[in-house]
Amino acid sequence: MKKSFISWEIYYYPYKLETGEMITIDNEEAHHIIRVMRHKVGDKIKLTDGRGFEYEGIIKKIFYKEKKLTIEILKKEFLPREPNVEITLASSPLKGENTEIMLSKAVELGIRIFQPVYFKNTVAKISENKLKRLVKVAVSSLKTCAGTILPQVAKPLFFQDLIKGFSSYDEVLLAYEDSETKLSTVLNKKGNKILLIIGPEGGFAEEEIKIATQKGAKLFSLGKRRLRSETAAIVALSLILYEFNNI
Amino acid sequence: MKKSFISWEIYYYPYKLETGEMITIDNEEAHHIIRVMRHKVGDKIKLTDGRGFEYEGIIKKIFYKEKKLTIEILKKEFLPREPNVEITLASSPLKGENTEIMLSKAVELGIRIFQPVYFKNTVAKISENKLKRLVKVAVSSLKTCAGTILPQVAKPLFFQDLIKGFSSYDEVLLAYEDSETKLSTVLNKKGNKILLIIGPEGGFAEEEIKIATQKGAKLFSLGKRRLRSETAAIVALSLILYEFNNI
Repeated sequence: MKKSFISWEIYYYPYKLETGEMITIDNEEAHHIIRVMRHKVGDKIKLTDGRGFEYEGIIKKIFYKEKKLTIEILKKEFLPREPNVEITLASSPLKGENTEIMLSKAVELGIRIFQPVYFKNTVAKISENKLKRLVKVAVSSLKTCAGTILPQVAKPLFFQDLIKGFSSYDEVLLAYEDSETKLSTVLNKKGNKILLIIGPEGGFAEEEIKIATQKGAKLFSLGKRRLRSETAAIVALSLILYEFNNI
Repeated sequence: MKKSFISWEIYYYPYKLETGEMITIDNEEAHHIIRVMRHKVGDKIKLTDGRGFEYEGIIKKIFYKEKKLTIEILKKEFLPREPNVEITLASSPLKGENTEIMLSKAVELGIRIFQPVYFKNTVAKISENKLKRLVKVAVSSLKTCAGTILPQVAKPLFFQDLIKGFSSYDEVLLAYEDSETKLSTVLNKKGNKILLIIGPEGGFAEEEIKIATQKGAKLFSLGKRRLRSETAAIVALSLILYEFNNI
């Protein structure tokens, strides 16, 4: 299907559904459907459960005062548009809105897990509220790109704990500002489970690079220029997807 | 030089300088040097003229009340850290802050010219004020990435007029959402002057694609997913730089 024919409008409903099922929506999505898009009874809309399924539903009733509506599910289709390489983006939280910008674009590009990591030079923290906000950013970005698999926004880990999980990935890649190695020369492409590590604004500590390398991480370069962390994440994701022929 | 040793602090002074010259700074940069970074007389700072030169200067006098300072230039060096492929990013203006986000990241990646273009489906406009704001964004981003060549922020063009200039580029590349062609298969890499075209939020009009192709633009894909325009620009720039071994 040509991308220009994919519906630009898709709503998130976080449960698996069956054809014929009747559901009620009464959250922000309901507001968007009724008030912003001004849908009427009888209109057909698309939904995704964030687990790879896309549904077509028809609006049966609208309760304007209560801002809710009921929808009957007409069609169910497994339609993942995610890359076949499964990338976990492990990044330091960034200052200001930069974590949101990074996550938003990483979801567009189809990461599976966003893992905030506290490095030695990390300054920003991820509060419970920030975590909730990041989940909202992920949902909103998934709808923008008409994706159907919602990436998991994981709770923050310390770098030492991230390292313990290296063995569950086929490749661990670390974008290092002092590396001069092109990504293509370190990729083995034998598996499709990738961990991509992006450091904090202040850079990695030397001992972090040492231990990550010892534990099997491969360092690679993002060029001669100094990139902001959120830019580095988007560039690195682009190159990995390109190498795996998903772009 | 390792990137981690590049000074994070560099100021923009838009004129060519000579060793021994004495200059006065009295704009926002002065505020940043005196108030934010709290430099004192005798401190050495770095400057760039945005034309490839990096200067070392020593602060000779500070006029706190007038928020200005004088600097003697001690050293002058031609230090371009820009990619050798010269990319013009021709993009539709985008809604909200997205033009700024796109430009900021494109400057980090080392574009030479930012050319706003009005397409049939373009909604946002570039006012005189917006243009001034974009120049500021470019300067700020250049300092962040320690670049020394300030990209030109050009006045907006209509798409028809952009086409007339195709022949002055070695390659014209257009990121098209309905293309399935991988970038590597259309690049000839015979020259290093590239025009990259990124469309508006609503997509290209069919006749725009038709005429651009007739005039020699090569269409390429950014993958199966729908990307926001500013994301598309960053991804496309990453891939071009990767193909030209600048990343």
